[in-house]
Amino acid sequence: MHTTVSHVRPEPMRREGCTSDNWTEPPWNRWGFSHVRELAHTARISRGSGPVWHLPESFRDLGAMRIPHSSGEFGLVAALEAVYTDAFVVVHDGVLVYEWYGEGIRHDQNHLVMSVSKSFTSALVGALVGEGLVDTEANVEAYVPELRGTAWEGATVQHCLDMAAAVQFDEDDYDNPESDGVRLEQVSGYLTHRRDDYPTDTASWILSLPPQGEHGDRFQYRSIITDVLGWIAESVTGMRFADAYADRIWSRIGAEHDADIIVDAKGFPTVEGGICVTARDLARFGLLHLQRGAVNGVQVLPAEWTDRVLRDDGTRRAHFAAGGNVGHEYYRDCWWVFDAARGLYAGHGINGQHVFVDRSTNTVIAQQSTWPARLDLPLLEFGTAVVKAVLDSFSR
Amino acid sequence: MHTTVSHVRPEPMRREGCTSDNWTEPPWNRWGFSHVRELAHTARISRGSGPVWHLPESFRDLGAMRIPHSSGEFGLVAALEAVYTDAFVVVHDGVLVYEWYGEGIRHDQNHLVMSVSKSFTSALVGALVGEGLVDTEANVEAYVPELRGTAWEGATVQHCLDMAAAVQFDEDDYDNPESDGVRLEQVSGYLTHRRDDYPTDTASWILSLPPQGEHGDRFQYRSIITDVLGWIAESVTGMRFADAYADRIWSRIGAEHDADIIVDAKGFPTVEGGICVTARDLARFGLLHLQRGAVNGVQVLPAEWTDRVLRDDGTRRAHFAAGGNVGHEYYRDCWWVFDAARGLYAGHGINGQHVFVDRSTNTVIAQQSTWPARLDLPLLEFGTAVVKAVLDSFSR
Repeated sequence: MHTTVSHVRPEPMRREGCTSDNWTEPPWNRWGFSHVRELAHTARISRGSGPVWHLPESFRDLGAMRIPHSSGEFGLVAALEAVYTDAFVVVHDGVLVYEWYGEGIRHDQNHLVMSVSKSFTSALVGALVGEGLVDTEANVEAYVPELRGTAWEGATVQHCLDMAAAVQFDEDDYDNPESDGVRLEQVSGYLTHRRDDYPTDTASWILSLPPQGEHGDRFQYRSIITDVLGWIAESVTGMRFADAYADRIWSRIGAEHDADIIVDAKGFPTVEGGICVTARDLARFGLLHLQRGAVNGVQVLPAEWTDRVLRDDGTRRAHFAAGGNVGHEYYRDCWWVFDAARGLYAGHGINGQHVFVDRSTNTVIAQQSTWPARLDLPLLEFGTAVVKAVLDSFSR
Repeated sequence: MHTTVSHVRPEPMRREGCTSDNWTEPPWNRWGFSHVRELAHTARISRGSGPVWHLPESFRDLGAMRIPHSSGEFGLVAALEAVYTDAFVVVHDGVLVYEWYGEGIRHDQNHLVMSVSKSFTSALVGALVGEGLVDTEANVEAYVPELRGTAWEGATVQHCLDMAAAVQFDEDDYDNPESDGVRLEQVSGYLTHRRDDYPTDTASWILSLPPQGEHGDRFQYRSIITDVLGWIAESVTGMRFADAYADRIWSRIGAEHDADIIVDAKGFPTVEGGICVTARDLARFGLLHLQRGAVNGVQVLPAEWTDRVLRDDGTRRAHFAAGGNVGHEYYRDCWWVFDAARGLYAGHGINGQHVFVDRSTNTVIAQQSTWPARLDLPLLEFGTAVVKAVLDSFSR
């Protein structure tokens, strides 16, 4: 499904009729994405009790920006509205220079970030690598014995980080309700109703997936692969994911608010796409990476972990291009790399969730949206143009 | 169902097999009550961004206490374990003098307080009375027009505060799964599965209840009556209950953590029994009342609102006794008054949730538990004896 970029303001968010079974769809998704804990079961990722990472504010007037589009020029706010933005936060040179919220969205409201959750999960893996608890070249079954004798056996942690484990999972068409990518919403706890012929929970689905190809033979986006990283994190820490995440990451970056993470019927954390945070905290997460893993002088992530996303021996680029992917150079460690030389990369989630990290302009942009469709190419393309225009305004 | 008070430590909490449909029952309720947001849909009651109300700590050794019981004397910890306590916090003369947590329960963990939620709800009504938005002598339909033409018409806010509205709702036997008090768990969002022949949501159930007797003719405990107070609060503030509660109460008392409140399938807040807080924050809520509505010099509730719970013209005592209730003098404003002259009163919830306010010893005791049965008389009686023994130790 595609939405035409329009100069007409989208419908304001509405609660009426929104249920725990329809909230991922328009017109309810704007209310739903900003009230996930009222519609799905969630665990708390605690911010702990430390001080908030203060972001100095110096508002920059970006109102004069003009973003070209085939339908005519847009000002920044009109452009953000046209791509169904709920929250937009820009931090440049460590200063909060721009912040905008759609009608009914508050700065202290957690909002689902969908697959940006994968980049969040990667950070925990990075912390565990730094502690020596995880070796990215080790096989997944070394950490989760349940994976022995399944399609996963022999896949490395790195294969999972790069979406290169050899399992069959169909996530090519989000408009197909029978695709695995959409079935995940019922299995992993986004929605309450689950069809009787679907797996009962994420872990049992993971264990039952058929093999496809060889580990490391390609990049193919399959969300469930990231869930194995969550399982590994629980296994090596002996903690539930939400607690391990709070312990290693969320309590250490001065987040303003607790985060939420969707859990499935058995309490398995939906690490591939179930994390909810405020836009400012999403920006702090981006800054953690822009600052090469350091927050207020404390090395939360190994600097090397944040650097390596920008390195590729050519394999990932080749696999990425072979799959017909365009717009990015490659996918690594649950991040989408636009331009490794420039240091521009992003976490992306369906319906318009993004965190952009740009080393060249020393900028992070956090964007949360509720596109009417899960993948909406005209909105994706125009939204990317908007972000690039903002980044360009800093490089002038 | 009754549980024999035993010297054997209860089973530690267990997650295995706990689901969104069985978590209110043993052996899952200990895990369930401390992980409600993972099992039910909850809204956030924000603590805001102000400073935490610091409770100075000076641990008092209560280990030498001996609490008599027909089965033999208990030390305090053994007694707390015997009544399935999960958390026990004592604040005396403004000092945190004792704090104990059951295995697997952390001080920062929200725990369901069941019907102590009613006392929480009363506080919001009190704040709204203070603002002039609610008159306790006004009829409920003046605030919620939907109640016109229903059994509720003509009931006053005070009737609702005192469980004296003339509606038929059967909550006399928690061991009867067909009783309204237990059906509420499916209708109001505690559990996920809802029988097809049950009301779809709390509001529609409220509207459909048949009349019984005359408003103000008796005290009869019927949880759904409190839900009407939540509806009134939403109506007069124009805010959702969780936000109104954060605004008027939770952000003003220096709570350490956000609270959770269960919401039903339509987002209606389960104000009669769905609030989850930490034990320390439960103690702060008690202190708000012990300190006659003032926190750090700010009058959060009118002092008069906290005083009037200790006043009765005899009507409530008569109604209370007429209903065969024992152990307390009367019920008023969603509080159970043990001894009005002494200033000892409490909020109580099934499965052993309590906040005790005692003016005579200047003490608050917060207790969260997971009795195997919703109402468990031997545990209730021994638990009350334990609390009174602790209070007595301060009056010596």
